[in-house]
Parts: sequence; structure tokens; C-alpha cells
Amino acid sequence: MLTLGKIFDAKRVLKDVARYTDLIKAPLLSSECKLYLKPENLQFTGSFKLRGAGYKIASLTDEERSHGVIACSAGNHAQGVALSASKYGIKSVVCMPDNAPIMKVEATKAYGAEVVLVPGVYDDAYAKAVEMQKEYGYTFVHPFNDENVIAGQGTIGLEILDELPETDVIVCAVGGGGLISGIAFAAKSVNPNVKVYGVQAEGAASMYEAVNAGHVVKLPSVATFADGIAVKEAGSLTYDIVSKYVDGIVTVSDSEIATAILAMMEKQKMVAEGAGAAAVAAVITGKIPCKDKKTVCVVSGGNIDVNILSTVLERGLYATGRTHRVRVSLPDRPGELSEITGVISEMGGNVLSVHHERGSDLSKINRCKLDIVIETRGFDHIEKIDRALEEHGYEFVNKSK
Amino acid sequence: MLTLGKIFDAKRVLKDVARYTDLIKAPLLSSECKLYLKPENLQFTGSFKLRGAGYKIASLTDEERSHGVIACSAGNHAQGVALSASKYGIKSVVCMPDNAPIMKVEATKAYGAEVVLVPGVYDDAYAKAVEMQKEYGYTFVHPFNDENVIAGQGTIGLEILDELPETDVIVCAVGGGGLISGIAFAAKSVNPNVKVYGVQAEGAASMYEAVNAGHVVKLPSVATFADGIAVKEAGSLTYDIVSKYVDGIVTVSDSEIATAILAMMEKQKMVAEGAGAAAVAAVITGKIPCKDKKTVCVVSGGNIDVNILSTVLERGLYATGRTHRVRVSLPDRPGELSEITGVISEMGGNVLSVHHERGSDLSKINRCKLDIVIETRGFDHIEKIDRALEEHGYEFVNKSK
Repeated sequence: MLTLGKIFDAKRVLKDVARYTDLIKAPLLSSECKLYLKPENLQFTGSFKLRGAGYKIASLTDEERSHGVIACSAGNHAQGVALSASKYGIKSVVCMPDNAPIMKVEATKAYGAEVVLVPGVYDDAYAKAVEMQKEYGYTFVHPFNDENVIAGQGTIGLEILDELPETDVIVCAVGGGGLISGIAFAAKSVNPNVKVYGVQAEGAASMYEAVNAGHVVKLPSVATFADGIAVKEAGSLTYDIVSKYVDGIVTVSDSEIATAILAMMEKQKMVAEGAGAAAVAAVITGKIPCKDKKTVCVVSGGNIDVNILSTVLERGLYATGRTHRVRVSLPDRPGELSEITGVISEMGGNVLSVHHERGSDLSKINRCKLDIVIETRGFDHIEKIDRALEEHGYEFVNKSK
Repeated sequence: MLTLGKIFDAKRVLKDVARYTDLIKAPLLSSECKLYLKPENLQFTGSFKLRGAGYKIASLTDEERSHGVIACSAGNHAQGVALSASKYGIKSVVCMPDNAPIMKVEATKAYGAEVVLVPGVYDDAYAKAVEMQKEYGYTFVHPFNDENVIAGQGTIGLEILDELPETDVIVCAVGGGGLISGIAFAAKSVNPNVKVYGVQAEGAASMYEAVNAGHVVKLPSVATFADGIAVKEAGSLTYDIVSKYVDGIVTVSDSEIATAILAMMEKQKMVAEGAGAAAVAAVITGKIPCKDKKTVCVVSGGNIDVNILSTVLERGLYATGRTHRVRVSLPDRPGELSEITGVISEMGGNVLSVHHERGSDLSKINRCKLDIVIETRGFDHIEKIDRALEEHGYEFVNKSK
């Protein structure tokens, strides 16, 4: 049974495995509440998963250890299991889908695990892990539906209330529910007045649906770039704990998560993965009742693929007026390209790319289309550039925002 | 005169202004030395500049305060002055070049300064600040060539040796030299055995040149994306201190800095600006003699423009095999585009963009050129895709790395 004593035991055991992550004030992210971040992205392995995996593995019997452990994960749990097993000198095998980011695969190997790449998706890797566990007798380390794993994650709740006893609200992302189960149980046991809210991606709202339905449900599919919380079905154990201890679950869109990632980079100089930014996204979009409250957002991890990060930044540049796309129609004659780029540079716009093509529209046979991407300094600057272009007689084909 | 006592006084005064930033172990960034980061990117205002500005402003007489302060900066010093002046209820004016990143201008205003945007570059803004200082009698807060400013930056040295007394080596970026002067003076005063190295951008090596020449020199121009250390001329005060206390200055290229920024994001989940990553760049390229030593890199700031960060990431994607550009020549007939993209997707490559054009080369009149950018999973994956394309008979126009 999960008890506060067990979470305190996990805290003692994890002293040698995980880092105590200090809270960071984040006033620039929200003026509504007194916001703090619990930066588990700065945890060893880049996510909180090390805590649950570490305590679970430390709690194994000698018999269980001797068989080695097996796990299945697309990333963070994999690294947590690999590092913890290495700490205790235990063999570890991790089944990962073969489309998992190369960076996560390499990190898992570097922490000492044997990685089995399984063609297909997470569910295929899971099936393979179960099969191998049966064949070789490994001890299975579940990513969330396990009391000791939950107790490990619960140490985050203890640390938060240890460092900031007057915490009013804790917000954290929910995938399978291990993190929030541990935190909610720990926090409410220490101080029943603390409110705990969960955040899920709109496209993977399995716990949200489960709580609404009154029982665990299996989503037919999940769609979110926050891979750390892309879970089709909540755990049975975690569902029970969430139903009892959590004050509410809200959902955020991928776009809201992306905005939160950008804000955390700009204002906190911190890299969060999608799941790691979900709690902040919920707070800055006003979905959590925390006005003027001391609110702690758990930043669950920072293992985001550079490809995704690059896309998030690019979107952010458009969203904040620092990149601007202009599409104009021009007379098809020499010198026009030089003239329009001259106007742009005079206004302080830096041309990033140009796509110029002769139109196929017969009614405008003597015109061509120009697509220019410009580095700009905000919406005022964009406005000025657009006005200057209009004053020079350029005709916008399609004005972008 | 700069004394250790003054730096201790700065430490006392700054308790209410700046954050004590805890060292962060960074074993994944270097296996050569025992690397720690001093994360001043997590300092309030996103850079160490707050320390020097804060102590300087706290040390002003009532008479000086009553006139208000003026400063000139393209970013970090501006924010440090603005926030410190607000803390002490003093009016502040900051002259900034009008091409300063909008984000830094907005932040400086938000911290309470009156911002004067000056057409031109840093030097124009400096001239304007001097002019306004004369006209209105403001007190000038120099970004580096000031004893109290240096004493404020020196508190970083005290914090490092306080937290890690067995520090062997400290590495930090050098622009005008305020940061390294304070740190070297403080660290050597506490423990003369600590080695202190400075790092400059190749394109702005004013202190490096000065130390080599034996006197301050003025560079005709500077060229680096690390704007925080793009300084044409070292200070007279800082040059003297560096000559006496610093063990060596090395330079790094913009490309090395960019690689360090990416590594810090991926491995430490931390955003550093160019200047902030320079010290790490010097260590990971083996330019600092620190084998097996306890080495602290000062991450001086994290205020990087999203535009630049986006470019750094994009370069990083190519450099680490996670984006791949293929240029092939194709027969100009229906179905070819569908066929080649079919081969790529079969190999697990995700097409990001396609540019297809009919060739202008008369000797190949029936062929066209195709430029495809693909999201890949590393160099092995690229190799496989290229091999598959070759096996299908595609002819590379120009193979990119």
C-alpha cells in the first residue's frame, strides 16, 4: 500500500540517485499567481522518471535483481531505468520503438542499458518487452502503474513542501498518472489544503476522460507532440489515486504547449519538453484557479528533440512578429526585385529568403509573384514595412499575420 | 582601489538584489575535466550584469542618486541598470542602438528604465548617452571600466569558491573585461592556486590582442554573433587587472560557440547566449588546460534572440545528421517526384521541403533538378537513405554533409 512512510523511504534511498531540484521563481511567466518552477528538466537524465525507476529498482529483492530488469519506453523512463540499474550493478534491457529519437536511444545506451529497437510504435515495443520478460525472466519495471514507482515520483511533492511550506497549488502534467499520483498523495498527506491539478494534452486526454467517465478508458489513438504524456490509457492504480486526491484535470492544446516552451526559453532560459511545459501552459492560459496563490508548476522533463524545438522556435518567431512573410505581385520586368528589397532594407528588415516566380494566371500575364521572408523586430516593425511597401505601390497577394 | 573587502561588501549589498546561483554539474558536456557551470543565465535579468550595476548603484551618494543614472547598452547591462535603479527608487535612462533586439528593449522598459533608441550602432548610443549625461547631469554607470562594477561581478568568484572550495580552474567570457577582472581578483585573493582563463570571440579579441601587445588596443571592427562580448576596446582598469591576475586568454570561433549552445540545450536543458556559451566552447574544444581538474565555466547570460537561437538550432540539425539535404538530377517526366519521395519515405525519412526545377543546362535538356530537405535520425540513417537512392539509380548533383 502507498503510504507517506514509503515516500519518505524513497526520499532517503534517492539521496544517492537523484538530485534535489531547487524551486525557481518565475515572475515573468505569470503576473496572475506567484509562480515557481520545480525544474525536473534539470534532474539527472533530464526528467523526473529517474526517481520512480530508481526507487523501484532499489526496492527489488536480491532474487529479482539477479534476473536483471526490463522496461519499455520511448525515452525518459528508459534513461531512468538504465541509470538506476547501472547504479546498483544490475543488468537492464529497454525495448524502444525504432522511431524513437536517436538522442534518447544513445543516452539510454550511455547510461548502461541494452537497447532493443523494435519496429513499430510504443505498443509494439511494449509487447516485445512482455515477451522477453517471459522468455528470460527479467523483472519488469512499469513506467507508472506501480506503487514503488509512484512513491519515487512522490518525493517531488515532499521536496516542494519542504522548500516552500506555504505552497497553495501544485500543477503537473499527466500521462499515465505516476507523477501526479505520487505528488498528490505526498502533498495532501503533508498538507490537505494544498490543491493539486493535472494537465493533459488535448490529443491524449486519457486521465481526463477516465475521471469524467468514472473508470479507466482506452483512447483509440493519441495525437500530441508532447511524447512524454502521449498515453492511451491511465493506470488502474494511478486512476484510483487521482480520483481520490487530485482537484481537477485540464487540457491544453499543442499550440499552447509550444507557446509555453518558447516563453520558458526566453524568460527562464530553460529548455522544457512538451510534457514539461504543459503545466506552465495551463497556468499562463488561465486554466488553473490560482490567482494570487503560491503556485508550483512541475517541469517534468527537458528531453525535447532538436527537430521539434526548431519547429517550435520557428512558429514562435511568426507568432511574436519576429519573422514576417510578404507575398506581393510585381510587374515582370528587370530591376523590380532590387527595388522591393531596397524598400525592405531601408525599413530595417533583413531578408531571410526570396521565392520569385512568373505567374501562371493568364489575366495577369505581365506580372510575377514574390514571396519574401523577412526578419523583423515585432508587429510595429511589420506594420511599418507593410505600409512602406503599400506606399511604393506594391500589391499584396496574401497578407500573412 | 579594488580590494577583497569591497567584493565582500558587494556580496552583502547584493543579497537583496541578485540571486546566489548554485553550481550545476555538467559531466555530459566534458569527460576531460570535472565540469561545473555557474549559471548566471538564471540570474535575474538573465545575466551577471545585474551584480555590477546593482553594487554600483547601491554605492552612489544621495547627491548622485538624486540626479538619476544613465547607461548605454545593447542589452544585458541595460537590464541590470534598469532593475537596480528601480530597486533603489532612482530614475534611470538607457541609450540603446535602435537595432537592439526588441525583446531586450521591452525588458529594459519593463524593469523601469526610460529607453532612448538611438539610430545607428552601439558607439552612436554611447555618444548620445555621454551627451545626455552632460546636458542633464545624470550619473554615468559604465558597463565594465569601474571599480564598483568590477567588485559586483567579483561576487561570482566568491560564490564559486564558497560552494566549491576545491575549484582548480575558472573559465569565463571576456568582452570589456569587467566580469573576469572581478572573478580573477576575488578568486586569486581567496586562493592564489586557482587558475583563471578568459575566452573571447575570434572576431572580437580586443583583450587577447591587448595582452599580446602589452597595452590596450582598439579593434577597427568586431564580428561575432555573441553580442555580449563584441567589444572593440578593453577598459584601462580591466586591462590592468587581467594582465596581473589572469592566467591566459583564448579565442573561439562563432561556429564553436554555436556548437556549445546546442550542447548546453541538449545536455543541460539550458539556454545560453553566445557570450554565455563561450567558456564552455573553449573547454569542449580542448583550449583550456583543465584535464581532470575541477573546472567551473561561468555561463554569463542567456539573453539570446530567438532568431539567432533558431539559426543555431538549424545548423546544429545539419551538423548532427538530423537534417539532410539531397540534390539529385531526375528525368523530366511525370511520376518521378512521386517515385523518389516514395523511396525516401520507405527508408523512414520525413520530407521537410522540396524544390523542383527544370534545368537550364542545354546538355541535359530532358532532365530536371530536385532539392529535397529530409528530417533524419543521424548519419547512419543518412547513409542508408543515400544508398537507397543510389540503388534506385538517382544521380546526386551535389552531396551535402
